[in-house]
Amino acid sequence: MELYNKLNTILEKIKRDKPLVHHITNYVTVNDCANIVLALGGSPVMAEDKKEVEEMVSIASALVLNIGTLNERTIEAFILAGKRANELGIPVILDPVGVGATALRNRTVERILKEIKLSVLRGNMSEIKKIYGIDASTRGVDSIDNTLEGGQKIAVELAKRLDCIVAITGAVDIISDGSRVFSISNGHPILSSITGTGCMSSSLIGLCCGTGEGSLYGAVAGIMIMGLAGEKAQERLKEYEGLGSFKVYLMDAISSFSIDDIKKRGKANELQ
Amino acid sequence: MELYNKLNTILEKIKRDKPLVHHITNYVTVNDCANIVLALGGSPVMAEDKKEVEEMVSIASALVLNIGTLNERTIEAFILAGKRANELGIPVILDPVGVGATALRNRTVERILKEIKLSVLRGNMSEIKKIYGIDASTRGVDSIDNTLEGGQKIAVELAKRLDCIVAITGAVDIISDGSRVFSISNGHPILSSITGTGCMSSSLIGLCCGTGEGSLYGAVAGIMIMGLAGEKAQERLKEYEGLGSFKVYLMDAISSFSIDDIKKRGKANELQ
Amino acid sequence: MELYNKLNTILEKIKRDKPLVHHITNYVTVNDCANIVLALGGSPVMAEDKKEVEEMVSIASALVLNIGTLNERTIEAFILAGKRANELGIPVILDPVGVGATALRNRTVERILKEIKLSVLRGNMSEIKKIYGIDASTRGVDSIDNTLEGGQKIAVELAKRLDCIVAITGAVDIISDGSRVFSISNGHPILSSITGTGCMSSSLIGLCCGTGEGSLYGAVAGIMIMGLAGEKAQERLKEYEGLGSFKVYLMDAISSFSIDDIKKRGKANELQ
Repeated sequence: MELYNKLNTILEKIKRDKPLVHHITNYVTVNDCANIVLALGGSPVMAEDKKEVEEMVSIASALVLNIGTLNERTIEAFILAGKRANELGIPVILDPVGVGATALRNRTVERILKEIKLSVLRGNMSEIKKIYGIDASTRGVDSIDNTLEGGQKIAVELAKRLDCIVAITGAVDIISDGSRVFSISNGHPILSSITGTGCMSSSLIGLCCGTGEGSLYGAVAGIMIMGLAGEKAQERLKEYEGLGSFKVYLMDAISSFSIDDIKKRGKANELQ
Repeated sequence: MELYNKLNTILEKIKRDKPLVHHITNYVTVNDCANIVLALGGSPVMAEDKKEVEEMVSIASALVLNIGTLNERTIEAFILAGKRANELGIPVILDPVGVGATALRNRTVERILKEIKLSVLRGNMSEIKKIYGIDASTRGVDSIDNTLEGGQKIAVELAKRLDCIVAITGAVDIISDGSRVFSISNGHPILSSITGTGCMSSSLIGLCCGTGEGSLYGAVAGIMIMGLAGEKAQERLKEYEGLGSFKVYLMDAISSFSIDDIKKRGKANELQ
Repeated sequence: MELYNKLNTILEKIKRDKPLVHHITNYVTVNDCANIVLALGGSPVMAEDKKEVEEMVSIASALVLNIGTLNERTIEAFILAGKRANELGIPVILDPVGVGATALRNRTVERILKEIKLSVLRGNMSEIKKIYGIDASTRGVDSIDNTLEGGQKIAVELAKRLDCIVAITGAVDIISDGSRVFSISNGHPILSSITGTGCMSSSLIGLCCGTGEGSLYGAVAGIMIMGLAGEKAQERLKEYEGLGSFKVYLMDAISSFSIDDIKKRGKANELQ
């Protein structure tokens, strides 16, 4: 009940305040990220030149850093904008896309974690495991299995270590602040067949955190909204339709999203 | 009647000549800008490396500069391409996205206005007001209200000062060359709920100006086409549909656009 | 029959292996390229920083280089990633978007052809003719007409000279390895009315080549799949629909694509 009240407040504040979400993100899914923030009622802004990111983030309610197509210029911008956001108490969300695939991504995530205080770290199991294991003193990360228990262990420990919310998205999503743990069983496998659903989840988390209702609930809200919209979009698909239609229906579902969707079919549980 | 004849000629020339519109633009809405130019019958090209923009613009019929995600590299490209376009008599359209939000955007717009002769400046009220007030000798810009009269005053004065068409888009659009003023009452509020409708309007203005029928009519045409397409798209929306479907219908409406749409529902008025 | 068996194997291997296709591409159509690779069953990745492209390509099954919005940074990345792909035997596909329009594009293509061994070069007639004529010793390229015979001559000779597959896409597509020549008569003119269908074809070729079934069949497969999906999408269009719907239906058609589509309506012929 507490959770639903919180989520309701978040949705209402988005409509009322239209929080501005500053993105420094990849150019693959940037249009979808802008549109999903608008569709739920927020305001997106994308800016990445080092000469303006500190100023831009200072008028925003949240900052989303997404390393999907990182480069020298954007890495510099991540750090500048992130530090300024920290000074101003603006929540910072990190989407460590593809960390583990290259040394540049690993180094960049390490640097961000060292220099910037995150509010939310959101990734899939493989990305979060990689970050969990970046710290050399952590052994045996690969032996942790991809079960709910394994994910829960990693989320809790990493949340404690980084002092932020850790959200692992997958068939079952796990969100922890280091002491409390929520699992969400919404969503549909088809979501992974279009590009950007992870990025869009991070943008929604940014938007929800931008309401000032706290990062734990912001992360739960963003992830649950994405999952529920995915379910609704999938159910609208006719037999002869496919991924093009699914993406259209997904954006439709976000733009008509309401607390009733959560009440009727939200599957969040607090664990422990 | 003169207006409708002009708009008809513009539409016919687009189909006949497929004007090439060179964009140096942001990566958020670039795909939509390319598709909307194609959908109306033109040819888009995007190129931003300083080593090729002068050559690219020289084969184009119009140049659209959009500062949405400006950076050092693209600022340089704006100037090089703009100057070359000026030399060749190719119309230059500026979309000053987010001017006023950061000093970098302000400086960049100032520099463009100083070094490049624009054909059309298109922005929303807040952006145009900011540019109107950049000149330090202008006082009291914030006291000008957001009414039709306020917009008309700014459009006319700024058009005179910059010697170009100024187009302010909003619930009612205002377009002036410094002496004549048109207002357009087409469009629908839903247009502001997807990203890129401003950028797309600027691309359409570029395409319409690329027909050689003059910048005043080019600006009126581009803005009216966008507004009418938005109306038609909105009317097609079923109750259970949302912003994903709207964007699809918007592109549908552009690709089937004809002078009949203007005849049946165009709401342009010459003021004064 | 041999062709259909090969295409069937390619489709099956895509579903089974989900080949990773590394793109260094333009920001206009990058989202569509990622989604089309996913829709057919593959995995796209986009990465362009020079510090990571060699590492990224080493875990990929194919590399697609697309010069649509090339710049200094991406040109460097093309070369680094291409050389590494060559060392590792990973197929490299080049889409020379707009070659001929600027000296930068010409120089870049020349450099790529000199430093990197391509598996497939795919462009339209104008682009391929330009490359055919870049070699100064080639005279009279402009006198070769745009007929099937003209295209065949260029494809065969250029394929021999570059020792790679050359694919010319158009109303009739021509694909040659220098000795064998295939023509494909699938597709629909509407495909050229949305941006990115060329880029998406190249991405599909990359995906099909990534199955390890050879570049000739990979190129034939990618181009035929795009053409057939275009036909199916066009047939679904209702009278009041347009290019927005077409793009949705195109992605739908790719995501439900099967060997039956090729069996029922594939129009590939081996010439000579």
